[in-house]
Amino acid sequence: MRRPAQTSQPLPALLCFEHLQQRYRQVRSCSEAICAPLLPEDCVIQSMPDVSPPKWHLAHVSWFFETFLLLPFLPGYRTPDPHYDHLFNSYYRTHGAPYPRAQRGLLARPSLGQVLDYRRHVDQGMGELLAAPPPAHAGEIQRRLELGLQHEQQHQELLLMDIRHIFAQNPMRPAYRDDLKPPAGGDAALQWLEFPAGLRHVGHAGDGFAFDCERPRHRQFLEAFRLASRPVSNLDYLTFIEDRGYQRCELWLADGWDLIQREGWQAPLYWTRIDNQWQEMTLAGLRPLEPHAPVCHISFFEADAYARWAGARLPTEAEWEVAAADQPLRGTFLESDLLQPQGGRGNALRQLFGDVWEWTASAYRPYPGFAPLEGSLGEYNGKFMSGQMVLRGGCCATPEEHIRASYRNFFYPHMRWQFAGLRLATEA
Amino acid sequence: MRRPAQTSQPLPALLCFEHLQQRYRQVRSCSEAICAPLLPEDCVIQSMPDVSPPKWHLAHVSWFFETFLLLPFLPGYRTPDPHYDHLFNSYYRTHGAPYPRAQRGLLARPSLGQVLDYRRHVDQGMGELLAAPPPAHAGEIQRRLELGLQHEQQHQELLLMDIRHIFAQNPMRPAYRDDLKPPAGGDAALQWLEFPAGLRHVGHAGDGFAFDCERPRHRQFLEAFRLASRPVSNLDYLTFIEDRGYQRCELWLADGWDLIQREGWQAPLYWTRIDNQWQEMTLAGLRPLEPHAPVCHISFFEADAYARWAGARLPTEAEWEVAAADQPLRGTFLESDLLQPQGGRGNALRQLFGDVWEWTASAYRPYPGFAPLEGSLGEYNGKFMSGQMVLRGGCCATPEEHIRASYRNFFYPHMRWQFAGLRLATEA
Amino acid sequence: MRRPAQTSQPLPALLCFEHLQQRYRQVRSCSEAICAPLLPEDCVIQSMPDVSPPKWHLAHVSWFFETFLLLPFLPGYRTPDPHYDHLFNSYYRTHGAPYPRAQRGLLARPSLGQVLDYRRHVDQGMGELLAAPPPAHAGEIQRRLELGLQHEQQHQELLLMDIRHIFAQNPMRPAYRDDLKPPAGGDAALQWLEFPAGLRHVGHAGDGFAFDCERPRHRQFLEAFRLASRPVSNLDYLTFIEDRGYQRCELWLADGWDLIQREGWQAPLYWTRIDNQWQEMTLAGLRPLEPHAPVCHISFFEADAYARWAGARLPTEAEWEVAAADQPLRGTFLESDLLQPQGGRGNALRQLFGDVWEWTASAYRPYPGFAPLEGSLGEYNGKFMSGQMVLRGGCCATPEEHIRASYRNFFYPHMRWQFAGLRLATEA
Amino acid sequence: MRRPAQTSQPLPALLCFEHLQQRYRQVRSCSEAICAPLLPEDCVIQSMPDVSPPKWHLAHVSWFFETFLLLPFLPGYRTPDPHYDHLFNSYYRTHGAPYPRAQRGLLARPSLGQVLDYRRHVDQGMGELLAAPPPAHAGEIQRRLELGLQHEQQHQELLLMDIRHIFAQNPMRPAYRDDLKPPAGGDAALQWLEFPAGLRHVGHAGDGFAFDCERPRHRQFLEAFRLASRPVSNLDYLTFIEDRGYQRCELWLADGWDLIQREGWQAPLYWTRIDNQWQEMTLAGLRPLEPHAPVCHISFFEADAYARWAGARLPTEAEWEVAAADQPLRGTFLESDLLQPQGGRGNALRQLFGDVWEWTASAYRPYPGFAPLEGSLGEYNGKFMSGQMVLRGGCCATPEEHIRASYRNFFYPHMRWQFAGLRLATEA
Repeated sequence: MRRPAQTSQPLPALLCFEHLQQRYRQVRSCSEAICAPLLPEDCVIQSMPDVSPPKWHLAHVSWFFETFLLLPFLPGYRTPDPHYDHLFNSYYRTHGAPYPRAQRGLLARPSLGQVLDYRRHVDQGMGELLAAPPPAHAGEIQRRLELGLQHEQQHQELLLMDIRHIFAQNPMRPAYRDDLKPPAGGDAALQWLEFPAGLRHVGHAGDGFAFDCERPRHRQFLEAFRLASRPVSNLDYLTFIEDRGYQRCELWLADGWDLIQREGWQAPLYWTRIDNQWQEMTLAGLRPLEPHAPVCHISFFEADAYARWAGARLPTEAEWEVAAADQPLRGTFLESDLLQPQGGRGNALRQLFGDVWEWTASAYRPYPGFAPLEGSLGEYNGKFMSGQMVLRGGCCATPEEHIRASYRNFFYPHMRWQFAGLRLATEA
Repeated sequence: MRRPAQTSQPLPALLCFEHLQQRYRQVRSCSEAICAPLLPEDCVIQSMPDVSPPKWHLAHVSWFFETFLLLPFLPGYRTPDPHYDHLFNSYYRTHGAPYPRAQRGLLARPSLGQVLDYRRHVDQGMGELLAAPPPAHAGEIQRRLELGLQHEQQHQELLLMDIRHIFAQNPMRPAYRDDLKPPAGGDAALQWLEFPAGLRHVGHAGDGFAFDCERPRHRQFLEAFRLASRPVSNLDYLTFIEDRGYQRCELWLADGWDLIQREGWQAPLYWTRIDNQWQEMTLAGLRPLEPHAPVCHISFFEADAYARWAGARLPTEAEWEVAAADQPLRGTFLESDLLQPQGGRGNALRQLFGDVWEWTASAYRPYPGFAPLEGSLGEYNGKFMSGQMVLRGGCCATPEEHIRASYRNFFYPHMRWQFAGLRLATEA
Repeated sequence: MRRPAQTSQPLPALLCFEHLQQRYRQVRSCSEAICAPLLPEDCVIQSMPDVSPPKWHLAHVSWFFETFLLLPFLPGYRTPDPHYDHLFNSYYRTHGAPYPRAQRGLLARPSLGQVLDYRRHVDQGMGELLAAPPPAHAGEIQRRLELGLQHEQQHQELLLMDIRHIFAQNPMRPAYRDDLKPPAGGDAALQWLEFPAGLRHVGHAGDGFAFDCERPRHRQFLEAFRLASRPVSNLDYLTFIEDRGYQRCELWLADGWDLIQREGWQAPLYWTRIDNQWQEMTLAGLRPLEPHAPVCHISFFEADAYARWAGARLPTEAEWEVAAADQPLRGTFLESDLLQPQGGRGNALRQLFGDVWEWTASAYRPYPGFAPLEGSLGEYNGKFMSGQMVLRGGCCATPEEHIRASYRNFFYPHMRWQFAGLRLATEA
Repeated sequence: MRRPAQTSQPLPALLCFEHLQQRYRQVRSCSEAICAPLLPEDCVIQSMPDVSPPKWHLAHVSWFFETFLLLPFLPGYRTPDPHYDHLFNSYYRTHGAPYPRAQRGLLARPSLGQVLDYRRHVDQGMGELLAAPPPAHAGEIQRRLELGLQHEQQHQELLLMDIRHIFAQNPMRPAYRDDLKPPAGGDAALQWLEFPAGLRHVGHAGDGFAFDCERPRHRQFLEAFRLASRPVSNLDYLTFIEDRGYQRCELWLADGWDLIQREGWQAPLYWTRIDNQWQEMTLAGLRPLEPHAPVCHISFFEADAYARWAGARLPTEAEWEVAAADQPLRGTFLESDLLQPQGGRGNALRQLFGDVWEWTASAYRPYPGFAPLEGSLGEYNGKFMSGQMVLRGGCCATPEEHIRASYRNFFYPHMRWQFAGLRLATEA
């Protein structure tokens, strides 16, 4: 997954490797739990070039630990198969030539079983390394371990995005899981929160982990703005559709209009109309839309067109961050095991975190003074800073401890297989 | 697989359904034996649009029996899943809208296990039908059963072609089987056999099974010609390569030259040069070339260019058939379990059958008076009669009882994942 | 234009160079007359990759004389610009790297004026050469000159095809000429002519000019067949359309069905329905269809589907040639200056020549014993013998002296910007 | 051309229509002067989808006056041809369906002569309208006229960009003009100017014309930064090339690296190495590079990679504007008739305006509070605000009166046929 890397901040003198080992085990087992309902057949499919087969995700995150921790720091460590370095390198070109992304679905082998063996092999090496980290590199090991764990958490969300896409291509409409509850309902209450103009701080502050692209913290002047108390709901979005939103070119950016004409888009991804009723292909199979849940799986172009239709606009990422800065981390995350955005209730600012990523009006570009990590890890974030838009807040497939107010996610404006929705803003 | 269908020839009064049931079981179990060495992961891959996942082959041939025998003739028969009719219809558009061919690799489900269950389900239905065929339809049932068995045999060869292609894409170069013997060697002896001019009969004669496109038997006048006693060998073909055959445009048909430039072809499919030695990716993994085995996995354009370079030409399909008409069915077939073309010895006309399909100079077009089968089965062959070239003789992956002198195989001239080679001819 | 070249037949001892010079002037001026109604702007357009800008045709045919006659045989001849050899080489790869075909429309320069100057320059050289041909090469010069003239005549037809296509793309629907008469009407009379089975001779006989691909004359055995007395008319074809011919997959070859779905074809090229009436974009602009004129601008796939719908088939090229062998050269040719297929009358075999090219059932492949010309001229025909179908008889844009019963034209089965129609045949 | 439209600012009570008429004539004649050296053949070519044929530009800018001024405000005005509204509408979808952009090169007609007649026709109408503007609409007419003139000036630059591209495709390397002087030399002196942190104003201020996207003027907080006194020169850029800049993936954004691999880019557009010397295809034909002139015709990706290689970065558009705000409008513009970026001398801040557009680090997005124009003119700018990057300062093909410090030009990051270079910045 393409995401930014940790800057080299000072570390506490006492390194809690025991705690880290426990976290390592917990994060690793979570990835496998996500794949537990899958058959070997499911783990091979690449349903579009942006999707990776689940098996590949499981192997790639292990390769990350192997490449950046075991090979440099664990003497005598051997990879189980020399091909893995080629096959499971995602995009680190300074490290070596990665296997072509669009061909990941051609790899029947290594089998799922072999991939799980590879995970065991890496886990064993990591156990050895963390049991007795060479003191000269303890700081660097801790930093890279943290990055490796954050990286695997990103892939947990990617796994769920990709699994949903893979299952949705199948005319049999199989369910990834049949034990998922339907999403909670909610109400349509909406309030506009006002934020005054002023010089604000944006970007990650403090000691905790953050990717390099969230730094440095810096000042931005914001004009006064208003922000909606909740994300746009399925019901709101249906009104847009019924008002011929997809047929009115004046609502769309030119590239977006071309896209929806070319692709024939008439609704969010995964929506389908059966017997005059909108349904949605979810991780639990086909289900009726929950009207009060946030709309999900829309592209930037759709979010932007909706906002224009609504007489509003998308918030900038700075506006979003200012609004979120003092909000509690509350919302629907991976840990809830609901795997679907939920309805909410009340007028207060809600669901900034979790449920759906919120498209912002901001292009993904470096902050003033941005410096990527050293070496191959510098490819983690910075090289993707063109053509993409920022999304904020995490979603129902994001691990809760992975998200924070300064977190910058990014996708191309045409992409919509991520759990992406929107929240409206206007000038004050 | 796209191949022609049986004409409605007279049938023997006594229908040997017991014998047919035995043949049915034998053919069906052969398909499963071919897939036995595969993992579920292998069975999902579609390595290019022309390839189908092994799982799909196993299901499609069952769908054929279900659609053309069980549903029309076995009262009360129910398909296990109504989606199967859509998913496993290959190209019978008059029957219903087939699932898009290029997307067969997106289907994780039905799983391999479910496909094997589907086979059991169809086998049980076929057992019931053949145990007590309704007398009014016994003749038609026998004819369609024969067609269904021939059809499944075609897919046995396709399975092996596709498995080879799937495994060859993987940089780990896995072997489909590791118990295969290396191909037998041979000698380079070559003789030119002369055939006089005259009016000949071409096309299937007699009562046995033949596809509709092999009929009607008709007359063709052939000028005198000479035919090589054996196929072109790897050694021969290496000489062509070393003589810069792939660099000399005057040897190539215009479409062929464009193709090899665009694709960068420099050798047959599956050949690779490692440490200055040519090796071949076989069903047994990477192996050194056997110099005296027939060259294999070349396109029509390569066969044609080779022949021009050699001062010869390809035989027409009529020439080939005339030469083969009185030859014994001898050569390397599926039953040998060698799965690789073999070297041969001696000056006599040899290896017309088995080992490698031989490209001919003839476009695949209808014989004078050709009539396709009635109904959807009429789509079996006739609708493919444009743009393709005829190949003759079968190969090492063809069941021996499936081939005969009048058999017309056909592929587009750029295709080469089938076991295809050539034999030279000249004017007399 | 891709067409076959003359074989090296013996020549009459007395070479009539004076007559040849006169023919040279006549053929050359005819090309310029075709372009006279064009503006410089028209001469630059390449409306699809198969089309060449008119200016390019005018230059290329001159390059042919320059390359194969002036440079080898006229001492001291210099080309006006060394770039021309690259720009105006169509496809003679053994001669040098041709400028990419699909980019001919990028060439504003040389201007039309410069191209006409180039023609004058070549004409002057040819005048000198033909006034005093070096006796040692007189035979070869005469042969190449004949080939060059035939070549330019082919391009005269191509010019008209391409001009029609260029003008038809323009929403303003400009007319190439506004002085063209509407096509003559005719009647719907149709008779089936019977031809008995037997051994026939096919291919060019005698001393006159023929392309290499028309030779050698050879024997073919033909089963008895019937041939329609006239081509299929617009009225006939409208019945096919109204009978849902373009919607019924069982009528189509598989490649044809895919094509018409992909392209959305519902009628011949240039037909358009305005206010419920079919009109046709002709060289005279938009005009109502003449019901009794032969249908024109259809692909092989459409011709084949029509024939299947009509319960008939296309004739093979041998059948066509046998029927045409003793027919007079009568029909609508370039010289008529009608530039549109015409209706006809009566039951007798008619319009075999001229009006519309007739698709045959035969793939364009070499005759037994075919040998291409020596050297680069060998690229004229032979290298196009894959994937294309034969058409016979010439059309309203073909010079009358250019056509004969043995003439083999060829196009890919999807092409239809040539003046192509069909005539039905059946088994006897 | 896609560019922003004027906001509805208050107008001076006294409308100087006489002055406007004079400006109208001057701007219009400048477009024709640019096309004067062209042949009709040159005016038809569309050398890539982004390029428009010169003829089309000449017509489209006239259509703009016709559509937004003559048809609404001049009673009785008639367009010379009803097709023009379709053919010459660039992208105003709310006005009607524009003729497909990528097919502009298919239009031989209207001829160049007819297009010039169209211009006369529009000029006459404009003369009538401006001689007696209906008082009730005088303000709106003046605003739209100003917009129409600015629009035509944008197309003057586009004409020169497109002409350069058209001529450069031709292997004959024709010169658009042979009377152009070689660019002036200069020196390599470079100084870093420091700008302190602070709250700045960005965006157009005052009464003069500006496009809607330059407004509203608003505050931005800028951290301290340094800006190079001059653009990067050809000599600088050659050092980057020789240091293997195009081969080192770590210097490139991921999309940029993919692009240069796919396209095989090794140098700026129009550069070519002949006999080991770099030359450039200019509007005067092929010429040696002037080492001290600014590098030109590079994409955003190349500018960004160069900056990274140089240990610097691109300035943001706000930084650029702050630096330019109090600089005189000095540099090489269209009026100089040099048509090539020039070398410069000295350490002072120079060539911010003219010579080459300077890529900035900023995505082209709306300013806070941005509001597009009403009606179809609202499509002028706002709908292009995705995926593009801002360039600042104008170039040698920009009319001097068309540029200002707040002017925002924008192109996709892969584009480089505009006159685009860069200037370095760093953190302070």
